[in-house]
Amino acid sequence: MLEKKHFQRDATKVMEWIDDYFAQLESLPVKSKVKPKAIYEQIPAAPPESSEDLDQILQDLSEVIVPGITHWQHPNFHAYFPANSSLESVLAEFITAAIGAQCMIWDTSPAAAELEERVMEWLRDAMGLPANFEGVIQDTASSATLVAILTAREVKTDFRANEDGVPNNLRVYCSTETHSSIEKAVGISGIGKKNLVKIPVDEKMRLRADLLEARIREDLENGLVPCCVVAAIGTTGTVAVDPLPELAAICEQYGVWLHVDAAYAGTALLLPEYQWMIEGIDRADSFVFNPHKWMFTNFDCTAYFVKDVDVLIRAFEVLPEYLKTKSRGLVNDYRDWGIPLGRRFRALKLWFVIRSFGMEGLRKKLRHHIALNEKFAAAIGEHPEFELVIPPFLNYCAFRWVPQNETDEARLNACNEQLLDTINKSGKLFLSHTKIGGKYVLRMVIGQTYVEERHVLQALEILREATKMVPLGRPN
Amino acid sequence: MLEKKHFQRDATKVMEWIDDYFAQLESLPVKSKVKPKAIYEQIPAAPPESSEDLDQILQDLSEVIVPGITHWQHPNFHAYFPANSSLESVLAEFITAAIGAQCMIWDTSPAAAELEERVMEWLRDAMGLPANFEGVIQDTASSATLVAILTAREVKTDFRANEDGVPNNLRVYCSTETHSSIEKAVGISGIGKKNLVKIPVDEKMRLRADLLEARIREDLENGLVPCCVVAAIGTTGTVAVDPLPELAAICEQYGVWLHVDAAYAGTALLLPEYQWMIEGIDRADSFVFNPHKWMFTNFDCTAYFVKDVDVLIRAFEVLPEYLKTKSRGLVNDYRDWGIPLGRRFRALKLWFVIRSFGMEGLRKKLRHHIALNEKFAAAIGEHPEFELVIPPFLNYCAFRWVPQNETDEARLNACNEQLLDTINKSGKLFLSHTKIGGKYVLRMVIGQTYVEERHVLQALEILREATKMVPLGRPN
Repeated sequence: MLEKKHFQRDATKVMEWIDDYFAQLESLPVKSKVKPKAIYEQIPAAPPESSEDLDQILQDLSEVIVPGITHWQHPNFHAYFPANSSLESVLAEFITAAIGAQCMIWDTSPAAAELEERVMEWLRDAMGLPANFEGVIQDTASSATLVAILTAREVKTDFRANEDGVPNNLRVYCSTETHSSIEKAVGISGIGKKNLVKIPVDEKMRLRADLLEARIREDLENGLVPCCVVAAIGTTGTVAVDPLPELAAICEQYGVWLHVDAAYAGTALLLPEYQWMIEGIDRADSFVFNPHKWMFTNFDCTAYFVKDVDVLIRAFEVLPEYLKTKSRGLVNDYRDWGIPLGRRFRALKLWFVIRSFGMEGLRKKLRHHIALNEKFAAAIGEHPEFELVIPPFLNYCAFRWVPQNETDEARLNACNEQLLDTINKSGKLFLSHTKIGGKYVLRMVIGQTYVEERHVLQALEILREATKMVPLGRPN
Repeated sequence: MLEKKHFQRDATKVMEWIDDYFAQLESLPVKSKVKPKAIYEQIPAAPPESSEDLDQILQDLSEVIVPGITHWQHPNFHAYFPANSSLESVLAEFITAAIGAQCMIWDTSPAAAELEERVMEWLRDAMGLPANFEGVIQDTASSATLVAILTAREVKTDFRANEDGVPNNLRVYCSTETHSSIEKAVGISGIGKKNLVKIPVDEKMRLRADLLEARIREDLENGLVPCCVVAAIGTTGTVAVDPLPELAAICEQYGVWLHVDAAYAGTALLLPEYQWMIEGIDRADSFVFNPHKWMFTNFDCTAYFVKDVDVLIRAFEVLPEYLKTKSRGLVNDYRDWGIPLGRRFRALKLWFVIRSFGMEGLRKKLRHHIALNEKFAAAIGEHPEFELVIPPFLNYCAFRWVPQNETDEARLNACNEQLLDTINKSGKLFLSHTKIGGKYVLRMVIGQTYVEERHVLQALEILREATKMVPLGRPN
């Protein structure tokens, strides 16, 4: 068992382990190659009866655990959306763990509550969100979107749903392209997925405002109650940006809560040149983005903003005797701003990241990623056997392989699936996929904190090489 | 902005800061004394444009933030339930942050999923939970209880509620003493708080099984649908243990989901002498406890166990194209075992704690805390002006001050409220309160990882001294 008097010795071992891990990172396979149960079977079925040594644990960490890690901080990780980190954020998490405060209410650590209030204001102002929005850190965008839908549910039922249950006629709208978390939230909230209306998108994969309005009118005529619209700023499949001004006008007209899901793309709002994405935001009710995706602040850290904080609190407040305090009403008790009671001191890592990068440093890195993506997309576009399926946007590129002028869509899909498999098995690069209009498409996202141009050039090279290894693309 | 080549230099600064913090900890006020907005006003209203130095940030951490921290790891912190930590857990969190894996599915880090599977088996077996239970780490017991209630909701509606919405006649039962998170979860789930039936307790504050059964029968007669019973093993107010064998028999007979909330007291199941608390657990459907309360694993880390994992997954699964993998069905994709999609690598800290303590070390520390509490309670019981309101149990003691044979209950309550305020303002000790049968009661929980006998003796001394400073108790 470790002892405080040896903390520096033990922490130094861990620090050195981490430094080694960072040094090795580029040489490790990006996506773990282990087979199911390979790690599980190396871990004893029963815990040790006696204390084991830190050195032994760190050795097992290297030998047993690391081979089963998919290295999200690897500069050749371009799958999903990133969950990027930074040295600042890692060190702040170390401190957060050491302080070990449980920040459920202001009383249980005033500094955590007030730092959270400030850094949320920093982000709000820097991202061009309206000054009357208030922010709170949630664990994930899934939870924040659930919170938004639950709040909308309460507002639309005059705050009766919590007490009386959910009427069967509340309607939630989003595009066919929006994230699975919305469907999950509508199910959890008791509104029922049958009441989630997926509105078709235009050629740019944006929610069609005209169809939304038509659907709302139709629902109203049928005695249904439009409750919430979820607009996406940067969809998962194609980073499409729904037309906020039109959606906001419709929501205002019909009295519907407008939640804006900018989980990944929201970070780009730090750049003035992307502020157009949220034109109309002053008429939205809530907004979410993840600093833990592309803002160098490690998972978990979701920033949720809401225009009318009183309705948020009214939707979630419970006040048992053992949590009554004298400061109640004077301060922010964030446990009433979301689902869990307990809360980590997550504001600290945002404070570290924002201060150590400076706003200038944040913007510079984001622009660097966007520039790298433009370079990557240009190379893909020029290559005779690759095709950009949609225009590149931000640090995201969706493309596919079209070998030897293959035109059969089913065969193209199979080729690209095999190509992805080949690449990811190589361990040199990790991409993920989606389907766009029935096409199996590779997704490349350049959002690693320490990614450099050479990694992107390497990715192009790996892609080209991998096509030679897919038999389906090279018949004969 | 920090650079990898200087990681060891920068991490050493942070490590030294933490070591200093640990060294100072006992001399700091346990509960922060700052006034509302005092911290907020010291933090600039706008973020810095240029990068700031780590030294400056650490200095501000000491000067601006630490005075606003309520020190949860202070050995004189005995409020609420603990959120204790350990050096092992802190170092593991450092590594978790450095690896920065987002563990939503097996593919995104097989080692995280498989280590989670193993350590949950370790805990299950060590705690005497049935071998057919499977475990998953959640953020908080609030979320886990919500997951349990949502799963019960789906089971009871033939998995239609997610899709069709929630019928208005589902009923959830718990005692009048159970945690506020149950009420919150019933509201969120759309079942409606009016359908939460709070069953009275016996003289030991345990849910009365006879009244539960009568209520279930009555509900059935009225066309209502009993859906879920939440049994508490260790309530927040008095650490009461509901009679699981009787409750399990009733739930079995009436086909009701039985969720067991052992958030705090569950850790004591590592001790054979407390296994009686969960007699009948084999007939329960789900069980939650928080290693982040009393098992030396820092917040957040909730262990949720469920008997039929297939129904859990069926209640939460969503499968968009971009998350389809080849390993699907062969492995555990934990994002389908709860609410958020994204997940931290939290199994690592449990692995560190369990291995470095050893089961022996865990048991020894728990028994030490229980013994300290017995000593404390004995001293309180013998003191002429203090009264044990209920018998001490585990590491929990509920007592009040009865100055000069005061018998007026309203005045006694006021005295104790002032006493608590005096103590907590002293900064030397932090307790919280509850009400038991209308009596304002002080709660003392001895669960700090590094608490020693001297801290408990000190607490007694501070209590005695503080009574002299409450004018209401010394009217002359």
